[in-house]
Amino acid sequence: MEFEVLQNTRESCRAYSSRPVPREQLDRLVEVAHLSPSGCNAQPWHFIIVDEPEAKAKLVDALDDEGLTGCPWGDAVPAFIVICEEYANVMPGVKERYGTQRFAQMDIGMAAMGLCYAATEMGLGTCMIGTFSDRKMHEALGIPKERPVRLVITVGFPAQEAAPRKKVRKPLDEVRTYNHW
Amino acid sequence: MEFEVLQNTRESCRAYSSRPVPREQLDRLVEVAHLSPSGCNAQPWHFIIVDEPEAKAKLVDALDDEGLTGCPWGDAVPAFIVICEEYANVMPGVKERYGTQRFAQMDIGMAAMGLCYAATEMGLGTCMIGTFSDRKMHEALGIPKERPVRLVITVGFPAQEAAPRKKVRKPLDEVRTYNHW
Repeated sequence: MEFEVLQNTRESCRAYSSRPVPREQLDRLVEVAHLSPSGCNAQPWHFIIVDEPEAKAKLVDALDDEGLTGCPWGDAVPAFIVICEEYANVMPGVKERYGTQRFAQMDIGMAAMGLCYAATEMGLGTCMIGTFSDRKMHEALGIPKERPVRLVITVGFPAQEAAPRKKVRKPLDEVRTYNHW
Repeated sequence: MEFEVLQNTRESCRAYSSRPVPREQLDRLVEVAHLSPSGCNAQPWHFIIVDEPEAKAKLVDALDDEGLTGCPWGDAVPAFIVICEEYANVMPGVKERYGTQRFAQMDIGMAAMGLCYAATEMGLGTCMIGTFSDRKMHEALGIPKERPVRLVITVGFPAQEAAPRKKVRKPLDEVRTYNHW
């Protein structure tokens, strides 16, 4: 698929078919995401594939942050891929001047994006979720306290095939200038 | 191009041909990147296309952070695209619980990644640079103090055509687990 078509085709999917996603395909998504670039090639990410009923139920509960957020359609999601921020082993000079985690969130955004593009091309729907109860998510999946959970990505075959929705974005002239802010 | 091929083909390019990159192509890259997803669709990014000699020279100087970093090959780069972090107008509940900029760095990583994929497909080389003198970069391009500069992306036609280098990554089992950290 041409990249621009892929960019326009990928969209948040919140209604999934009950068809399970084979573990092999979930592994593939992580493999492709793991080829993403990162600052100093530190690869500051840890992927948790969640596809067993008990773990999924705990994860869906953790998406509810004391009533503020939540995922009412979470029970029907075939699988999740959780991305945590790992310690980034950057180059010594960079570490001292900018800190180890300076690029980690951007790096995770890049890897998550690649994962979603790979999923789109495989006919899978995804939705990136960034709001949840930190405490419950750490408990649900046994994640060390010092490793932030950055994104929960839902993965499954879309319930319905439909043309992609039109993307709503700011006018380009609002976000782009030339040679000066 | 199949996405996995694109993922394997994109790599940091640090040697450029003198062939200029038409403004139209630089605009296209920003257009495709601007279609990226973002938390609450806040689109917290500002792209500065830098392709004029004077602005480029000031930018290359700002890549030198008091001798720690720097870009010795910067003078031969046909164009740069600088991505700054904009204020993120997220949903009210999200703003109060998580803050406005909670997703901004991941969002910028996603948009930057899309920009580089689009460039790769157009035969352009890119390199994402995250270390530079903040002070000099803000001065060079008239960027407001309160808007962080997150990435400087070099753009040009590669000096030489060559097969992509093999990507060096941690073993998958180090970065992936199932149903638990």
